[in-house]
Amino acid sequence: MEQFQTVFVTGGAGYIGSHTIIELLNANYEVIVIDNFVNSVDEPNGESSALKRVETITGKKVTFYKCDLLDRTTLFEIFEKHDIDCVIHFAAIKAVGESMEYPLLYYKNNLVGMLNLLEVMEKHKCFQLVFSSSCTIYGEPKYLPITEDHTIGGNITNVYGKTKYFIEEMLADISHSNKDWNIICLRYFNPVGAHPSGLIGEDPTKAFTNIMPYIAQVAIGHVPLLTIFGDYETADKTGVRDYIHVMDLATGHVAALRKLYKEHQHLKAYNLGTGKGVSVLQLVKTFEKVTGSAVPYRFAGKREGDITAMYADADLAEQELGWKAKHTLDEMCIDFWRWKTMNPCGYRPHKTKLTNGH
Amino acid sequence: MEQFQTVFVTGGAGYIGSHTIIELLNANYEVIVIDNFVNSVDEPNGESSALKRVETITGKKVTFYKCDLLDRTTLFEIFEKHDIDCVIHFAAIKAVGESMEYPLLYYKNNLVGMLNLLEVMEKHKCFQLVFSSSCTIYGEPKYLPITEDHTIGGNITNVYGKTKYFIEEMLADISHSNKDWNIICLRYFNPVGAHPSGLIGEDPTKAFTNIMPYIAQVAIGHVPLLTIFGDYETADKTGVRDYIHVMDLATGHVAALRKLYKEHQHLKAYNLGTGKGVSVLQLVKTFEKVTGSAVPYRFAGKREGDITAMYADADLAEQELGWKAKHTLDEMCIDFWRWKTMNPCGYRPHKTKLTNGH
Repeated sequence: MEQFQTVFVTGGAGYIGSHTIIELLNANYEVIVIDNFVNSVDEPNGESSALKRVETITGKKVTFYKCDLLDRTTLFEIFEKHDIDCVIHFAAIKAVGESMEYPLLYYKNNLVGMLNLLEVMEKHKCFQLVFSSSCTIYGEPKYLPITEDHTIGGNITNVYGKTKYFIEEMLADISHSNKDWNIICLRYFNPVGAHPSGLIGEDPTKAFTNIMPYIAQVAIGHVPLLTIFGDYETADKTGVRDYIHVMDLATGHVAALRKLYKEHQHLKAYNLGTGKGVSVLQLVKTFEKVTGSAVPYRFAGKREGDITAMYADADLAEQELGWKAKHTLDEMCIDFWRWKTMNPCGYRPHKTKLTNGH
Repeated sequence: MEQFQTVFVTGGAGYIGSHTIIELLNANYEVIVIDNFVNSVDEPNGESSALKRVETITGKKVTFYKCDLLDRTTLFEIFEKHDIDCVIHFAAIKAVGESMEYPLLYYKNNLVGMLNLLEVMEKHKCFQLVFSSSCTIYGEPKYLPITEDHTIGGNITNVYGKTKYFIEEMLADISHSNKDWNIICLRYFNPVGAHPSGLIGEDPTKAFTNIMPYIAQVAIGHVPLLTIFGDYETADKTGVRDYIHVMDLATGHVAALRKLYKEHQHLKAYNLGTGKGVSVLQLVKTFEKVTGSAVPYRFAGKREGDITAMYADADLAEQELGWKAKHTLDEMCIDFWRWKTMNPCGYRPHKTKLTNGH
């Protein structure tokens, strides 16, 4: 045996989860998935639209349960039924703006979900965990590119980010108290793009708050105008981010699982980014160039609580996980556009048109 | 009506809760109490030993339910049954050392308990809350005496303190998102002493980690020797703390409720301390002086993660709550000793002797 056998994936019907499962199946893991369909699409028979397509792409099967992490009974039953080696925990609610409006909902879902998962894992002596963290936990960067030893938890301006920070703190304490735990926190920068097949991609069920679905909605004509927040102290006055292709993120998770298998580090965090800062305006221009579609935009002032610039130092992941982002900005745009044009309404043929959350 | 009518008290059978309830009853509040007896003593008929004595002291009745905050069903039923105006939330597990050993237990109990309580309060449009916070959330002080605007969350060395910090952050977010909330966080310094009747006091069910029960156990001869951690940069090399009489804390809660009734501040934090730093050695010497009992001790080195000195600037509570600690260090020792000598085994006549947790 050269790797873990059975991976339990929470939130596996979502954007990053579904793309990661492709790489897990390609790497011959058996995959058990749960999702509550709060931010993903289900079929009338209770299956996940995204995971059906994942099965089409890979020619392999996943075991799926509709389950909310707050439903302890079902969660514990699944762990009784399957021999789970390791867990990738994607499930969380993640809309920054919404998290400020409904903090209690966010704290409950994200923290209690995590605690229930840790409890069932401990009960079954399953101590291998990959946790979906976020660069948000760094707060306003003190230097760039940002390394993993940058302070976390300072000046986090939104509740979503705080839930990720609190969880990293909990995981640190838990792994410190019980040396059986072997945990990797992957701090995502800004995931964009889609699987090159165009069959799966990002399909927010609520008003979208992520940049690329927003750009694509404008490009395809569902939304008339893109609002770009400007007036930041950057070269073109728009915010700078580290966009990373979701398929690169996906391979990052496989690399993390291999690391957990090979080495017991208790707790370790890795940035998953490209290491390159790209401005929002650059992203829009690239999108227009590679897709040939116009993206009309207007500038607005600063958005409160927004960070001017944030990009990763991704060297640690390269050194220790043997992982490096490979996909270019062009590919991120091309692949997302393929998904969008092949599925203008996402997974639902006649989905109600979403309004812009900005 | 000059004040709220009905106060819901969580953890009301515990040390600070039971003393506060005396003052609540004296101030003519109707008091509904829950406790799970995790760190308090129950009678064979399911009542609380401490609360029975509270009723004796005050000549008034409290309504008591055995209920764990993790038991949502019972919690929601109690809120259906009673017309609750405001809540004082004491319930938490609080042993610093234990919290490092069992972080998952601490996070679950303290965070999920708080979230359940906030949810039931929101459902019943009860938005008035006094939360038991702690000076621990300040971490290593940057200056002394410490004011409420000192940063919180930096370098908190134990999980117990982190749960308090996380909750203060949650309360800030919740009160920011919904302006109906009216919350006071009381940041306790080091509560000691007991009700002057000698009928109620601190009676830890687990190996004690607080200083005064430990000193008293040595004074009464149940434990041979007190270990004092020394080698700190203070006048006598022992740690400096702000000891506050539990009856002063109790009146602080009544003052906080009155403030909530009079003024809608959304969220405000107040230090409850005397403003005076007292070293552990001074406390021991005072205890010996006023009780006439010897407390043999030995010195040990530093305790990892311990803070050298911490005492409150308590001016804000005086200005805004009209509250000030009145009891002297002598009284703290005398009152605790009265409780201890009248109840050498706490609430249980033949309690198993506790071992020292240090």
